[in-house]
Amino acid sequence: MAQLDFTLSAGPTVASARTLAALGAPITYHYDPDFLALFRRTQQKVATLFETTNDVVLMQGEAIVGLEGAARSLVRPGMHVLNLVQGVFGKGMGYWLTDFGAVLHEIEVPYDEAVSPESVEQYLDAHPEIELLTVVASETPSGTVSDMSRIGPICRSRGVLTLVDTVSGVGGMEFRTDEWGLDVCVAGAQKCLGGPPGVAMVTVSQAAWDAIEKNERAPRASYLSLLDWKEKWLIGGVFPYTPSVSDMHGLEACVDAMLEEGVDAAIERHRKSALVTRAGVRGLGMEIWPARDEIAAYCVTSVRLPDSIDHLELRKYVRERYGVMLSSGQGAGNLIRIAHMGPTASGLYPVVGIAALGRALVDLGHPVDIGAGVEAALATISSQS
Amino acid sequence: MAQLDFTLSAGPTVASARTLAALGAPITYHYDPDFLALFRRTQQKVATLFETTNDVVLMQGEAIVGLEGAARSLVRPGMHVLNLVQGVFGKGMGYWLTDFGAVLHEIEVPYDEAVSPESVEQYLDAHPEIELLTVVASETPSGTVSDMSRIGPICRSRGVLTLVDTVSGVGGMEFRTDEWGLDVCVAGAQKCLGGPPGVAMVTVSQAAWDAIEKNERAPRASYLSLLDWKEKWLIGGVFPYTPSVSDMHGLEACVDAMLEEGVDAAIERHRKSALVTRAGVRGLGMEIWPARDEIAAYCVTSVRLPDSIDHLELRKYVRERYGVMLSSGQGAGNLIRIAHMGPTASGLYPVVGIAALGRALVDLGHPVDIGAGVEAALATISSQS
Amino acid sequence: MAQLDFTLSAGPTVASARTLAALGAPITYHYDPDFLALFRRTQQKVATLFETTNDVVLMQGEAIVGLEGAARSLVRPGMHVLNLVQGVFGKGMGYWLTDFGAVLHEIEVPYDEAVSPESVEQYLDAHPEIELLTVVASETPSGTVSDMSRIGPICRSRGVLTLVDTVSGVGGMEFRTDEWGLDVCVAGAQKCLGGPPGVAMVTVSQAAWDAIEKNERAPRASYLSLLDWKEKWLIGGVFPYTPSVSDMHGLEACVDAMLEEGVDAAIERHRKSALVTRAGVRGLGMEIWPARDEIAAYCVTSVRLPDSIDHLELRKYVRERYGVMLSSGQGAGNLIRIAHMGPTASGLYPVVGIAALGRALVDLGHPVDIGAGVEAALATISSQS
Amino acid sequence: MAQLDFTLSAGPTVASARTLAALGAPITYHYDPDFLALFRRTQQKVATLFETTNDVVLMQGEAIVGLEGAARSLVRPGMHVLNLVQGVFGKGMGYWLTDFGAVLHEIEVPYDEAVSPESVEQYLDAHPEIELLTVVASETPSGTVSDMSRIGPICRSRGVLTLVDTVSGVGGMEFRTDEWGLDVCVAGAQKCLGGPPGVAMVTVSQAAWDAIEKNERAPRASYLSLLDWKEKWLIGGVFPYTPSVSDMHGLEACVDAMLEEGVDAAIERHRKSALVTRAGVRGLGMEIWPARDEIAAYCVTSVRLPDSIDHLELRKYVRERYGVMLSSGQGAGNLIRIAHMGPTASGLYPVVGIAALGRALVDLGHPVDIGAGVEAALATISSQS
Repeated sequence: MAQLDFTLSAGPTVASARTLAALGAPITYHYDPDFLALFRRTQQKVATLFETTNDVVLMQGEAIVGLEGAARSLVRPGMHVLNLVQGVFGKGMGYWLTDFGAVLHEIEVPYDEAVSPESVEQYLDAHPEIELLTVVASETPSGTVSDMSRIGPICRSRGVLTLVDTVSGVGGMEFRTDEWGLDVCVAGAQKCLGGPPGVAMVTVSQAAWDAIEKNERAPRASYLSLLDWKEKWLIGGVFPYTPSVSDMHGLEACVDAMLEEGVDAAIERHRKSALVTRAGVRGLGMEIWPARDEIAAYCVTSVRLPDSIDHLELRKYVRERYGVMLSSGQGAGNLIRIAHMGPTASGLYPVVGIAALGRALVDLGHPVDIGAGVEAALATISSQS
Repeated sequence: MAQLDFTLSAGPTVASARTLAALGAPITYHYDPDFLALFRRTQQKVATLFETTNDVVLMQGEAIVGLEGAARSLVRPGMHVLNLVQGVFGKGMGYWLTDFGAVLHEIEVPYDEAVSPESVEQYLDAHPEIELLTVVASETPSGTVSDMSRIGPICRSRGVLTLVDTVSGVGGMEFRTDEWGLDVCVAGAQKCLGGPPGVAMVTVSQAAWDAIEKNERAPRASYLSLLDWKEKWLIGGVFPYTPSVSDMHGLEACVDAMLEEGVDAAIERHRKSALVTRAGVRGLGMEIWPARDEIAAYCVTSVRLPDSIDHLELRKYVRERYGVMLSSGQGAGNLIRIAHMGPTASGLYPVVGIAALGRALVDLGHPVDIGAGVEAALATISSQS
Repeated sequence: MAQLDFTLSAGPTVASARTLAALGAPITYHYDPDFLALFRRTQQKVATLFETTNDVVLMQGEAIVGLEGAARSLVRPGMHVLNLVQGVFGKGMGYWLTDFGAVLHEIEVPYDEAVSPESVEQYLDAHPEIELLTVVASETPSGTVSDMSRIGPICRSRGVLTLVDTVSGVGGMEFRTDEWGLDVCVAGAQKCLGGPPGVAMVTVSQAAWDAIEKNERAPRASYLSLLDWKEKWLIGGVFPYTPSVSDMHGLEACVDAMLEEGVDAAIERHRKSALVTRAGVRGLGMEIWPARDEIAAYCVTSVRLPDSIDHLELRKYVRERYGVMLSSGQGAGNLIRIAHMGPTASGLYPVVGIAALGRALVDLGHPVDIGAGVEAALATISSQS
Repeated sequence: MAQLDFTLSAGPTVASARTLAALGAPITYHYDPDFLALFRRTQQKVATLFETTNDVVLMQGEAIVGLEGAARSLVRPGMHVLNLVQGVFGKGMGYWLTDFGAVLHEIEVPYDEAVSPESVEQYLDAHPEIELLTVVASETPSGTVSDMSRIGPICRSRGVLTLVDTVSGVGGMEFRTDEWGLDVCVAGAQKCLGGPPGVAMVTVSQAAWDAIEKNERAPRASYLSLLDWKEKWLIGGVFPYTPSVSDMHGLEACVDAMLEEGVDAAIERHRKSALVTRAGVRGLGMEIWPARDEIAAYCVTSVRLPDSIDHLELRKYVRERYGVMLSSGQGAGNLIRIAHMGPTASGLYPVVGIAALGRALVDLGHPVDIGAGVEAALATISSQS
């Protein structure tokens, strides 16, 4: 097996040297005054990243702990919830909602499409009993995005709370929490921030806190509890459990890096890499998975595979033969994904992905034009200012 | 405020350079074949550490996620559970058990004492309806331990399952999972292993799996679920969620270090540091918190404070004035704790703790004999082979 | 300016994560017993790497400190020395030799050629007064090598001492110190080992020591002194000056990695990357600088540039525009160099170099076939077992 | 043997986590624009540290490479040089001066004393043929200092150039290059800066450059050459040899830390730790080595040993038995040294040294009052604001 040279997977992605150094910094007691200051400072920086004045809760665990905690906190039995489904993560949220006792409404589209804001508007107007909308801003498994700039205001104007899975969204697409009126947003650090995979960032609006506090079923005295974090930590200054000192070091480092670069500049960097990768894919003679460029993510490019090539086999082959780690379809379909996320949303990294993918397809008997793919990707970089 | 020079707190404790380097190692995709191999290898090493052939589940989060997950997995509404209480962690488990619907039985002793195996035996014989015993092997907040070598077999011989909180136990006290017949054991890495604070190690016996699988209320499709880990990962090879690649790197490093040292040698190292610290405390003219040396932990020495000195004020003063981070009572009483845990269970670290504590007490108006304390600690080191 | 994504320069090259972690390991006193053991152990490992039983001297400084120290130690005023010149490093040695008082003999060939062993043999036979031959095994600036397997024995059989600059040679080409009878060899760690740039590795045969000891002009009580290292350290166990603890940590790590991989495997890895790069260069429609493949280095591929493209401008453009750091000609000619050295002698790294070079040439108005170049490189990788 | 817990040696000392992270940062090409900027920036920061507008040369190697290079550059055969000797480093400089052809004048005092500025003044007035004075600002082996604030101006006013060995001086004692009129000053990073042991910092005044340029014997085209650095790098922008990228990363980090703390604050920190250590030594019932407190260094405290205790044996014993690394006399006498240097010039580190030294002396049969020593050290800390 080849040694791993390039990690172009869709999260965890590679972390920068600065972030790695922070992850390896000395571990202190969680009540050391230096750590308390770092924790509070990082909350504030994350708020800046999310463009919000809402509370920030930094839960220890993969982003999904924030999603589950938020969903359990918000959902009451019998509550009407509209869930938007355009991929496996959205679909999974629906199972949870049902499990937690909600009356589930869903707008579902094929996994290479995106739910239109218009359909959301119409559905909410037709169902005034809906109190909460759940949506995945960036469906990483299929490489598509939702238009939160329109869905957010549609909900806010109707008094519908929003729970937004933006795990791979922050830093890799425009995301304006307060301007768009988003209530609970959950992100991870191991995607566009190029950070550690062990921390969930959750922002909570006052309206959301009000709803959570009224919910008798909201987790309390639990690892999943948002309320614990609010009451014990945000108000009381006592951690509900020991946070991961090393993860917080890593989180601050990667957030600092993005704030220094500028969030808009980081988004633009991801956008450019997406354009390079798409050009490369088309140059190979392949198609991107999303039905339209408008709904294709900036942080990962998903590529539609012919039936003759299995996505898991392909991923394995590319890694073992060429030392490049791509991501497979993860349930969204027969697709392969080249991520350009965090540090890999830069320069020639997409070219590496195109070259590895192209050569592997040829090896596996599927003719593509490698040279044209690489040339198209490079021409796109060359044309970018 | 002084800069932090010495972290002698009761976890997170300092990590070794080797562990820190591992935490800062490049982050890879969680399905990278190298990481999959590391994850499986680390499970096996953790089993060796626990002296068990039971399954090992490595959950991502502070150890408490493992405790909550295990308790929720095992407890059915109406189930009779005996909870042993000799400190705040044991007390907290009782609240959970009630919350999860158990019929709670408790044997409670003062927080400077330990529940005797004899009382457990008697209680279980008098209450054959009890199906599960919950116990804290190492009550870090009060610095006391339970005699698991006797409590384990008492339960096993009666068909009572055991759920053992050994978060700070593994590596710092004798702990023989299989020999003592312990069913579910939960440990953290940030204590005697000197590892990262973001991973929970859980061992599960077949009997415990059987009970969990029969429990309709056991968490499923949840961050708290042990069953997800069993079904998806242990059987299916698919992670229920993205594990923290960096934490796993750190975990393997600290477990490797302990296995190379030898678990028994590591325990002996902690024991020696405890003897040094106790001698120092008594040399100062203070008393240790545990009622008897036999029940005093090897990994942390808790010191009884006079009423005139508040434990939180003292901890703050020592840190801010002398750059030494100790731990306070954390609800167990008016006590201060000098940990000798992981890398700080070595050499002159306890002397630093005694010196800082002694001088701070004098500064705060409480006369102690600093010289005698330090001399007693050093004499103990000198006498140890 | 683009951020630096890829360092494909001809040393310092990138270091592996393992080596970087070692460089960042805690610094200890140089007389700490652990460090003394590490230093001695590393000497032995370096000897293994050089395939020698000669003494190893690890001087602190860039490899050139070893070259200067060795040359000054060996050369007496009036001594006849044959210097082989096929590039700038060889040429520079000649200036030194003259400066140190030697009677200089030179065989010089164009910088894209290599001095033939036959010409060495003839010259030595015609000039029996020659006592020392100096040669550059791997002329990094022009990417050519010398055939040490033949030149070594030619000298040895005639009683001529050899001083070999193999700074970029060890690990990236066959190098058998004892089998080929090489007396003094000097290497650096920042080339094929992917190690730190601050340590010079010098091997010294007994015959060389004898000559040095008889040389009144050999540096003594000097930073340049080999004799100090022999008398104070190798014999006396006292360092002539404080060695760099961090560099030695880094050196051991990178040597360990190569010994674990196997020196022959590492050489083969460099050879394969050279073949990939050469194929890519020719696919672009360019020519490699060396006159023949037989004399082209495995660790770096030098590419002949048209007069219309200046090598320094090109290097600057590729770095600033595409975030890829190549090396320029460094006095050897109008050439650009793609190194495949240490960690970059692997997988698709050469493809990155070809893509960056190709696109930059097109941008600068020099037409090359980027697609063909990349395809040729990839086809070569695909064909390698 | 005990594991190493505390490095209290007189350099290399421990490095901070920040410096270690920098040493382990990715290695780049030395002509990468980022590295070029870092190198130039670091020169400027070092100038700030030395309080000078003179040129700064950063040579790659232990500080002694800078001393040798500077001495060889300045000394002409037949030149009259006054060398001040109050310890082994001063003595060694005299041997070099003779070796390099100088006419040597020396003022020598016992190694626990310091040469008085008055004697320098008188000597220079009596010997107007002297062109250069060489002096060790901080004689680390004996823990004494010279009064550069007076010696500097004495020389400057007489037109005598100064070559100052301040290897352990910068950051740990007042040092004002320009105000005191010092011409060539050489420091290392592994002392009070807590930095890497592989870089020599040299400042050179215009008058010194003038003298060097006129000196035909000044090294040229040599690793020891200051002129190469001036002509090739400072003027030409080309490195005379590859600098150690990792060492430069480490150097910038430790210099940054000191500049952020403030040089005066850093000196005060060293001074306080010296006072704590001296109090501890006297509390033990021992004497410091320097004849008077006024000439005792802030960065290291040397302790006079009774004849019955050998300094090398003691150092070995303390390290092997207690895991604490002290320094021995290094030729200056039968003394042991506790350094408080860089990160260890802080908080309770001196107490660790006193405790280890005291207990070891008792173990070895020499009665000291450990308790009184530790109490005196702690009382001193307590009394410091």
